[in-house]
Amino acid sequence: MATYVPPARTENPYLPLGDHRNAPFYGKDILSVRQFSREDLDYIFGVAKEMHAMVERVGTFDLLKGKILANLFYEPSTRTSSSFTSAMERLGGSVIPINEVRYSSVSKGESLPDTVRTLECYADVIVLRHPEVGASALAAKYARKPIINAGDGVGEHPTQALLDLFTILSELKRVNGLTVTMLGDLKYGRTVHSLARLLSLYEVRINYVSPEILRMPEEVKKELSEKGIPQAEYETLDEVLPETDVLYVTRVQKERFSDLNEYESVKHAYVITPETMTRAKDEMIVMHPLPRVGEISMEVDEDPRAAYFRQMEYGLYVRMALLAMVLGKA
Amino acid sequence: MATYVPPARTENPYLPLGDHRNAPFYGKDILSVRQFSREDLDYIFGVAKEMHAMVERVGTFDLLKGKILANLFYEPSTRTSSSFTSAMERLGGSVIPINEVRYSSVSKGESLPDTVRTLECYADVIVLRHPEVGASALAAKYARKPIINAGDGVGEHPTQALLDLFTILSELKRVNGLTVTMLGDLKYGRTVHSLARLLSLYEVRINYVSPEILRMPEEVKKELSEKGIPQAEYETLDEVLPETDVLYVTRVQKERFSDLNEYESVKHAYVITPETMTRAKDEMIVMHPLPRVGEISMEVDEDPRAAYFRQMEYGLYVRMALLAMVLGKA
Amino acid sequence: MATYVPPARTENPYLPLGDHRNAPFYGKDILSVRQFSREDLDYIFGVAKEMHAMVERVGTFDLLKGKILANLFYEPSTRTSSSFTSAMERLGGSVIPINEVRYSSVSKGESLPDTVRTLECYADVIVLRHPEVGASALAAKYARKPIINAGDGVGEHPTQALLDLFTILSELKRVNGLTVTMLGDLKYGRTVHSLARLLSLYEVRINYVSPEILRMPEEVKKELSEKGIPQAEYETLDEVLPETDVLYVTRVQKERFSDLNEYESVKHAYVITPETMTRAKDEMIVMHPLPRVGEISMEVDEDPRAAYFRQMEYGLYVRMALLAMVLGKA
Repeated sequence: MATYVPPARTENPYLPLGDHRNAPFYGKDILSVRQFSREDLDYIFGVAKEMHAMVERVGTFDLLKGKILANLFYEPSTRTSSSFTSAMERLGGSVIPINEVRYSSVSKGESLPDTVRTLECYADVIVLRHPEVGASALAAKYARKPIINAGDGVGEHPTQALLDLFTILSELKRVNGLTVTMLGDLKYGRTVHSLARLLSLYEVRINYVSPEILRMPEEVKKELSEKGIPQAEYETLDEVLPETDVLYVTRVQKERFSDLNEYESVKHAYVITPETMTRAKDEMIVMHPLPRVGEISMEVDEDPRAAYFRQMEYGLYVRMALLAMVLGKA
Repeated sequence: MATYVPPARTENPYLPLGDHRNAPFYGKDILSVRQFSREDLDYIFGVAKEMHAMVERVGTFDLLKGKILANLFYEPSTRTSSSFTSAMERLGGSVIPINEVRYSSVSKGESLPDTVRTLECYADVIVLRHPEVGASALAAKYARKPIINAGDGVGEHPTQALLDLFTILSELKRVNGLTVTMLGDLKYGRTVHSLARLLSLYEVRINYVSPEILRMPEEVKKELSEKGIPQAEYETLDEVLPETDVLYVTRVQKERFSDLNEYESVKHAYVITPETMTRAKDEMIVMHPLPRVGEISMEVDEDPRAAYFRQMEYGLYVRMALLAMVLGKA
Repeated sequence: MATYVPPARTENPYLPLGDHRNAPFYGKDILSVRQFSREDLDYIFGVAKEMHAMVERVGTFDLLKGKILANLFYEPSTRTSSSFTSAMERLGGSVIPINEVRYSSVSKGESLPDTVRTLECYADVIVLRHPEVGASALAAKYARKPIINAGDGVGEHPTQALLDLFTILSELKRVNGLTVTMLGDLKYGRTVHSLARLLSLYEVRINYVSPEILRMPEEVKKELSEKGIPQAEYETLDEVLPETDVLYVTRVQKERFSDLNEYESVKHAYVITPETMTRAKDEMIVMHPLPRVGEISMEVDEDPRAAYFRQMEYGLYVRMALLAMVLGKA
């Protein structure tokens, strides 16, 4: 196997001169939550907060006018794809939507490096969703333009974790000192793994509530332990609910259970109802990465503590911030 | 079953202050032809006429600059989807195209209310095409942002009926006093049902020409009778063609007939040819919702009375008007 | 069969008055390489060069602000579709993406003439990719707005040939006097057929290197002979490589061979490696229409003579030029 050394990443020729070249994240890829320091997060959330304020005040603005995003989705994700499209359009930029890659040059066998090197001829930044772990890192290795990972298989989905954290910050005005309870399938959910890693940059206490077979992986727990994060595991929510500030719900999928009796015996313990909410703090928030399929009952939507739709909106501001940042405009 | 009461529809935070809040249709949904009064139609068509004039003069303008349309199509419809996309872009707005919902979060089982509540975090207005009757009303119940029904199964397709009526008005300069003849499959076509209902707000005479088994439903005829609209049914066009001002053609599908001999015996009676046109008024117009598959021969296209492609263009102006109206900009 | 005579092509009503009506290509279709004279090419490449300069200087500009492109793809092609989308957006225009025509009104049996006559109600120019030879000419016969052929089956793909030639011109600063070697499957590749035809407008020498069964068709060779172009055929690259200025590589597909032993015996002769490059001129360029699947090894990408990704970028400028030209803005 030959080892290919891609050319040095050069300045984006489409950007006008300015002091943005010293801006943090200018020309950078967003690949993994592991790349962020606490200072990075403060910076990102500061920009996201500005985006929020500007959207509320004026709706859209032309910060990225003339810039083009290639929205490259190898697997469908209406939510994430729409969110990035909206983020780019609210900043005055344009989008090349690429949703049917399964049928096209890709299916003729083109490699991911070739596809991204083609697309960067047409676009200024590439958002990539791919079914394989490591796809974003591979794309970034070959691309001269910034790559934003919008989910690569069971690997990472860093912008989801960032929006989760920005939701907590926006709703509760702080992260330090909070007790976060993660509920449901903690074994297979890349969302909770990434969020746990980001939370380890703060002073928090984390509870894991899951069926025995769907526990948070040892690897993640070990990583957080080394950073001194207090963690505890439970099989029911009852004990930890009263002390919880953030309840992060995920779906428990029937298919994960080899013994369906086991599934039947636990499934009700992981559904949030109005009754559940009566036992929670007044200022708690309920989050969910969506889509939900029954694990939070619709009656809970009325509760002001139900933050999961607002969470989608915070996602817009975070993605606006990231796009502006990597294009040197934040 | 719990009954969920959605929150009160609040002001759209993205709209700048102004007197648009008193504008008719600002923040409203467009769900059914039944929601319109005669005054409403006058208003809509007045705005559509302005849109027509502005497109002819300047092509596009920035009335909806900064606004975003989520074009949510659960079933494909190139024509309707392209028309709304063009309408939004000609007004300076942006579009989030969502065509592959079948493969995405929806297929993971997400409910329509959850999908629209997610999309309204990213967009200012949602156009919805859905295979199920009542889908738009359901979406509108949960959404804070305006929903425009672009067809829900055999239910309604109100913007089609509006553009049909606007076509008549633009081509013949009036609706009152006209004789409208509807031809073909009048039983299953939601288009003719909706158009008939809208026409009942005017003083018109309606002829229905169809095979026995594809007659206009009693329910629709009864509704129009109560409003005093003269209606008559025929099996061939010959008798009514000379008096017809508007000939509205729809397709007679072979699949509707259990007895194929019956289909063979009638099919030619429902095809419009240049010979047909010789027996029609000079100032008659021929309309068709398109796509056509043989029920109007291509030779008729040359006839100035063939209005079906102009009809598509009138549709653009009506949809521009509706988008501007519900966003408080008309 | 009735013969339909489409109406005379009228002035585009959306264009403001100006002297663009005398501009070459204003309102014209781009259907085939055969429509271009040498003067046409000089003009097109002059505009493309300006586009290149403007993109490098300012990124995007509003030359086509308010114009709408209908990007009508009956078969998927991420590369070509993204390229036209980007070209339109970099010029400030908007795009109606139509990628799923297979499922939509088309599959209900609508004819191509009806589809384009509908779309031209919404758009100012139509880019068409279609699996059938002659589809673009048919569309252009019925459309009043310009049609740009983005590939019709094994027929033509004129914008690809134009971008190929513009790449040669941009990289080597001339076309006259060059030796162009076409390698691989020369029988079925519409790309090499079209490029050969365009090259015949210059003073070049062309070598064809292919397996016996994949030779350049007699028809093309005859056409070039009549124009006095020196042509020669080879089965291996070795003899002609040292004199080659432009090496145009295409894929040799296993499926073309009835005798797999024959395929195995030739396949290595048509793969470009760093070793191949040591025997080539210092100022030679390697081109490929992409996607590639092994016929150029990735190690070659590092070589400054590897022009195939730059070729994609030149394509953007050529398509920007064509869009601006047919819309009277170049």
